[in-house]
Amino acid sequence: MTWGKSLQESVIKLKNNKLFEFFVISIIIFSALLIGIHTYDIPQVYIDILNWLDVAVTLFFLFEIIIRFIAEPQKANFFKSGWNIFDTIVVVISLIPIDDSEMVLLARLIRIFRVLRMVSVIPELRILLSSLFKALPQLGYVVLLMFIIFYIYAAAGSMIFANINETLWGDVTISLLTLFRVMTFEDWTDVMYETMAVYPLSWLYYISFIFLTTFAFLNMVIGIVVNVMEKENQKVFDEAHKDDPTINELYAEIQILKGMLKEQIKKS
Amino acid sequence: MTWGKSLQESVIKLKNNKLFEFFVISIIIFSALLIGIHTYDIPQVYIDILNWLDVAVTLFFLFEIIIRFIAEPQKANFFKSGWNIFDTIVVVISLIPIDDSEMVLLARLIRIFRVLRMVSVIPELRILLSSLFKALPQLGYVVLLMFIIFYIYAAAGSMIFANINETLWGDVTISLLTLFRVMTFEDWTDVMYETMAVYPLSWLYYISFIFLTTFAFLNMVIGIVVNVMEKENQKVFDEAHKDDPTINELYAEIQILKGMLKEQIKKS
Amino acid sequence: MTWGKSLQESVIKLKNNKLFEFFVISIIIFSALLIGIHTYDIPQVYIDILNWLDVAVTLFFLFEIIIRFIAEPQKANFFKSGWNIFDTIVVVISLIPIDDSEMVLLARLIRIFRVLRMVSVIPELRILLSSLFKALPQLGYVVLLMFIIFYIYAAAGSMIFANINETLWGDVTISLLTLFRVMTFEDWTDVMYETMAVYPLSWLYYISFIFLTTFAFLNMVIGIVVNVMEKENQKVFDEAHKDDPTINELYAEIQILKGMLKEQIKKS
Amino acid sequence: MTWGKSLQESVIKLKNNKLFEFFVISIIIFSALLIGIHTYDIPQVYIDILNWLDVAVTLFFLFEIIIRFIAEPQKANFFKSGWNIFDTIVVVISLIPIDDSEMVLLARLIRIFRVLRMVSVIPELRILLSSLFKALPQLGYVVLLMFIIFYIYAAAGSMIFANINETLWGDVTISLLTLFRVMTFEDWTDVMYETMAVYPLSWLYYISFIFLTTFAFLNMVIGIVVNVMEKENQKVFDEAHKDDPTINELYAEIQILKGMLKEQIKKS
Repeated sequence: MTWGKSLQESVIKLKNNKLFEFFVISIIIFSALLIGIHTYDIPQVYIDILNWLDVAVTLFFLFEIIIRFIAEPQKANFFKSGWNIFDTIVVVISLIPIDDSEMVLLARLIRIFRVLRMVSVIPELRILLSSLFKALPQLGYVVLLMFIIFYIYAAAGSMIFANINETLWGDVTISLLTLFRVMTFEDWTDVMYETMAVYPLSWLYYISFIFLTTFAFLNMVIGIVVNVMEKENQKVFDEAHKDDPTINELYAEIQILKGMLKEQIKKS
Repeated sequence: MTWGKSLQESVIKLKNNKLFEFFVISIIIFSALLIGIHTYDIPQVYIDILNWLDVAVTLFFLFEIIIRFIAEPQKANFFKSGWNIFDTIVVVISLIPIDDSEMVLLARLIRIFRVLRMVSVIPELRILLSSLFKALPQLGYVVLLMFIIFYIYAAAGSMIFANINETLWGDVTISLLTLFRVMTFEDWTDVMYETMAVYPLSWLYYISFIFLTTFAFLNMVIGIVVNVMEKENQKVFDEAHKDDPTINELYAEIQILKGMLKEQIKKS
Repeated sequence: MTWGKSLQESVIKLKNNKLFEFFVISIIIFSALLIGIHTYDIPQVYIDILNWLDVAVTLFFLFEIIIRFIAEPQKANFFKSGWNIFDTIVVVISLIPIDDSEMVLLARLIRIFRVLRMVSVIPELRILLSSLFKALPQLGYVVLLMFIIFYIYAAAGSMIFANINETLWGDVTISLLTLFRVMTFEDWTDVMYETMAVYPLSWLYYISFIFLTTFAFLNMVIGIVVNVMEKENQKVFDEAHKDDPTINELYAEIQILKGMLKEQIKKS
Repeated sequence: MTWGKSLQESVIKLKNNKLFEFFVISIIIFSALLIGIHTYDIPQVYIDILNWLDVAVTLFFLFEIIIRFIAEPQKANFFKSGWNIFDTIVVVISLIPIDDSEMVLLARLIRIFRVLRMVSVIPELRILLSSLFKALPQLGYVVLLMFIIFYIYAAAGSMIFANINETLWGDVTISLLTLFRVMTFEDWTDVMYETMAVYPLSWLYYISFIFLTTFAFLNMVIGIVVNVMEKENQKVFDEAHKDDPTINELYAEIQILKGMLKEQIKKS
């Protein structure tokens, strides 16, 4: 169908238009502002206007996704990208009309995720986010070790201190939360002084926990720094020398010279 | 006009005088002390003296700027420097006589900016500050990503928690401030325990927020470190080798040798 | 004994079985969950089931250690590994039947250490932990210096402030704890304002302490970073160049060429 | 005098004796413990014993300094070392008998500085401390910039907020302390909420201050890291290559070869 082809061509043209890209980003920022304004106490008249604008934004997003879908040469590839699926789900859910007042909060919560579309639209943010997630697996074992430390202390804490303060040490889950609080140094002495009134030596529990987690955390940070630096150094080194002949090549050349000289000495 | 020329020459001489520079810095420190003394409760007699000294300092600053203006060969260039404009504005505003008691506070606030003249006068500080600002654009996308995280959490927070505590989660702006507080670990458990009383699972909101922002912040710091190091390494590397012939040049020399040998072998 | 030998062979086969390893890790996680469930308020029926499961886990651990002991060719080497001794002790203590309610808490505390068996079973965690401990001696002198700073401030603090607040500055040990709290910035101003009411200049004590410890801590962190980086750099450098002929070898080759040329010049 | 000479020789022998060194360190630790015990509530009998032990320690320190003084070949050099002067002053002041109960506290405070003798006796600690102080001047301008930021905010703060809370913003000095507290995130929201009740926009003051100081602090840390790394890298690089002929030397050698070849070509 020639008509279909020419449509696709003009759609690709539109999609790659810088002005269109800029317009999409503006609409996302505008939709973020809409969500923000909703959190203020505003008269009903404005709320109605906001709702109409919200519908307009939703329709525009639907239109933008359809554009991107048509522009895609292989339709199956469209849903292979996580960001496309994310965009589609957010838009589709926004389309469901909601009358029930219970569901209104949920519907508005989902609209917040539209702000994340900023990441899916700006390539630099997408790269940044994916490089953030790539750094995670490196941390795997340190995080596991840290969780083991947390779990041992939480189990011990809820066994020993549960009778002193049920809301802080009631069970393992609550104790984990309390220990996370201790690690952030948030009023950790209040927690400690309370248990020290019963067990005077319980400061050992807190100090050892703080030392272990701080040390493991430091190690994790240093691990990431070193890892990133290493890759960067390697890259800089490789770039600086890629056009240079290597010492190996120099060596080979000198060997050839030697061979030629030997030959000549034999001759003369 | 010969008279104008000789004036300019002697003014340039004065401006470049080390003693004069030192004197200017002393006057800035003195003006900073004047501002500091003003914040103490002192009898009216001393306040009058301080005001007279303040006028003297203002006049000296005016004199110093005129000197610098005369010393400038191209008068138009004078106002191309941001620091010169800053200096001129601060001094000119200080010259406006104020009788209204309402405006006195404002006038004194503007005088505080004279302390910043320290930066405009000491070149090392000027370089340091400009290198600080140069580091900012590199952070652009991480800061944007962080703001998106903040905005999403703030919008969600003010939607869900607004009814629990109006002063902490009233609207998006207040929620952003509350989240900044949570990021600095300042009594963040108080904020959390309050919402956990209503939504027992709301710790997920806080813990995920802390993890995301800490992780993004860490990444930002590491990004700066790596960036700075890379440049330094490159500089050190370049400096160490700038006088050395490169391996490329060695290679070329060996090629010449080979050519010469070949020629001789043909001859003999 | 052929029977003994074939037993050992099949045991080694079992021990090295990937599925068996995976099963051991699952049992450790299961035993960690058992400990966690114990901290909740659960009806007596479930506690009885938990206790039976606990016995089953203990017996499995005993079985697993016996397997590892049999699989070891040199029986004496088995107890040379710290992790083997640790595993054996934890399991043996778990085997002691306890009726006394006083001892129940202790028995359950020891069971928590089973979670640490995770480290002894997963080799990556074992390597990570030993590398963490290897970093400690490097810190030796900085930690000693920090302790001297802490001790001097604690002794001075308990001499001067003991009369103001007995619970914070009662003796050297309590003062050390209070200073650790100040170093973590935990409500340190409350401590300071209290003593400033009596000694208005006591802020000098706190600010100088914070500066010294922060500075020493920073130095320690930087020390570790530099140390780790240095080793990594050295490793990268060595790896990159291990197959290359060195500049030394190039030099030697050129010397040979020179010798050959000289010889030929003499000849001709 | 032969007698004097042989005395000096045996004194030097004693001073360099490893066992004597170890004994001196033990006495310093013992004296630190004495100071620590003094901070506990102990019966008078023990206090008398402690005082006698204290006299013994003082006499031993006097003896040790005399030894070191005699062992010094050039007597004038002895007082050129800051550590020797420090040791002498601490010991001499300890010798003054004190009856006045007022002075007892002061006398005991001075005794605390004996713990610092640990640093003067262990060479590794002396090196560490001097390297810590060497790092300070590098920080000069960043610290100056940070102080300018602090001063401007403190002056503005005490002008605007003095009427709200006299104890936090009374004058410039108190405001500096309050800002230091804000920088350590210690209950900074309490300070902020108080002023926001009067000036709703005052959060701008705090947030901007936190951003500026955090950014400057980060920059300082990164500055130190980069500086230390650079020196280390240079050292590693120099060490790795000190025995190698440089590329420069290789180049020179190849030039010689070329000259020789040219000569031979002319000849033939």
